[in-house]
Amino acid sequence: MQKEGNVVAFQGEHGAYSEQAVFSHFGNTVMTEALRTLHEVFDAVEKGAVPYAVVPVENSLEGSVNETYDLLLRSSLKVGGEIELKIIHCLIAHTGTNIADIEAVYSHPQALSQCRKFLEGKVWEIIPAYDTAGSVKMLKERNMKQAAAIAGEISADAYGMQVLARGIQDQPNNYTRFFVISKDESGPTGRDKTSIVFSVAHKPGTLYQAMEPFAKRGINLTRIESRPTRQKPWEYHFFLDFEGHISDVKCKEALADLERIAAFTKALGSYPKAKES
Amino acid sequence: MQKEGNVVAFQGEHGAYSEQAVFSHFGNTVMTEALRTLHEVFDAVEKGAVPYAVVPVENSLEGSVNETYDLLLRSSLKVGGEIELKIIHCLIAHTGTNIADIEAVYSHPQALSQCRKFLEGKVWEIIPAYDTAGSVKMLKERNMKQAAAIAGEISADAYGMQVLARGIQDQPNNYTRFFVISKDESGPTGRDKTSIVFSVAHKPGTLYQAMEPFAKRGINLTRIESRPTRQKPWEYHFFLDFEGHISDVKCKEALADLERIAAFTKALGSYPKAKES
Repeated sequence: MQKEGNVVAFQGEHGAYSEQAVFSHFGNTVMTEALRTLHEVFDAVEKGAVPYAVVPVENSLEGSVNETYDLLLRSSLKVGGEIELKIIHCLIAHTGTNIADIEAVYSHPQALSQCRKFLEGKVWEIIPAYDTAGSVKMLKERNMKQAAAIAGEISADAYGMQVLARGIQDQPNNYTRFFVISKDESGPTGRDKTSIVFSVAHKPGTLYQAMEPFAKRGINLTRIESRPTRQKPWEYHFFLDFEGHISDVKCKEALADLERIAAFTKALGSYPKAKES
Repeated sequence: MQKEGNVVAFQGEHGAYSEQAVFSHFGNTVMTEALRTLHEVFDAVEKGAVPYAVVPVENSLEGSVNETYDLLLRSSLKVGGEIELKIIHCLIAHTGTNIADIEAVYSHPQALSQCRKFLEGKVWEIIPAYDTAGSVKMLKERNMKQAAAIAGEISADAYGMQVLARGIQDQPNNYTRFFVISKDESGPTGRDKTSIVFSVAHKPGTLYQAMEPFAKRGINLTRIESRPTRQKPWEYHFFLDFEGHISDVKCKEALADLERIAAFTKALGSYPKAKES
């Protein structure tokens, strides 16, 4: 997928963790397009403005990115790749600003809470902001020299700022999983995963029955996630990830069985498993 | 549970949807305590500073409130009640401000996106903020008369502001589900639900096996939700809601079966089903 001249869209400001995921998958020289919302990201690929986009799916501490799941359900795009990015939060400020100069720290509430131990006991005012990289951008644009932001290392590069401390998160095991989306399907590589979505009638045992086709073939489910249908309160779509490619006989048979049981099924795509990062 | 003199804690600013849920369950005269984080809310009940708290669990459009699930897992508190609140977003401004005076609209990104159709075509600057009721409070405190906020009706009352438009969300089916948490268990009423959490070994068929005890007894599962364990990336706890009280024979047997299969199980509590609101 690393064709030259490609542009890859992501949600957020330049320097965002999503942009870091783009670089880790497509290489550092790929062109990127920063879009304001995930909705705009899906739109850009659907309309052919960009061939690929990278969207966050889940974080190992925080769980699913709900909006991505809702957009995947409605979109005709295919999931063709998976990226796992280790999240390494950094304290970022203007060049020349020392830790002792800092009076306030800005970041997304999740990043702030993931750095609780580092922030504890400091006299800094903690100010929740809408975005991690966006906080770095704000400090730069407003020339705020008594403040710092918590964001990824590449956001310091993006805005010509300085990393004062690196890896300041409480938990080392902080990963975000991303999907590469495009109009194309990915062929089998022998170490693939498949993502599907389905719904079942709201009565006892239906979800259990829906999982049988996978259990009886020894297909390993790597994730199940429920999302509200948005049509009727407290009715759910189930997002399922399992090992194997949709063209594998076992997977094809399991899906055919599921289609007979489920009220609705949709394959989102098969893709090579992310390399351990 | 509507004892006099009770104080019920919730997360957010006064006027928040969580406070509205408190009033709908405990009556309008109950005392409330607004706390900054869900962590502080759980803490206040655990330490006995307040007997009850009301915490959001899921929204019918947006899905789970991840932080609540993580706190329930670690807490010794019991879920003893369930509340369903219809979310009715309002456009709120200073008294005397007309729709034509508005230049900017503040609210939580979720509330803004839920009112997309209402906001479309308006010339207003849309500004994401950390909180719905907090946006109303900010307009009041900073005397911002050319701006409006999107929040629940009671936040207008809380800050002496005015509702300019009511029910401005795109989708009428917008409900948030809350849990009442305390140190006490709730006795059976005949129309109860139970919430549990469990984990299973990460191999094919284990989740399927874990659901069998419920399927074979015809126990209706009303929700399954996976959450990262936070210990190891991509390992999950499963939160399960089902119909019945933990003291019902059928439910007791199913739980005993599950305990033999699962690596870990914990009952969060049984509670009367929420009334349809």
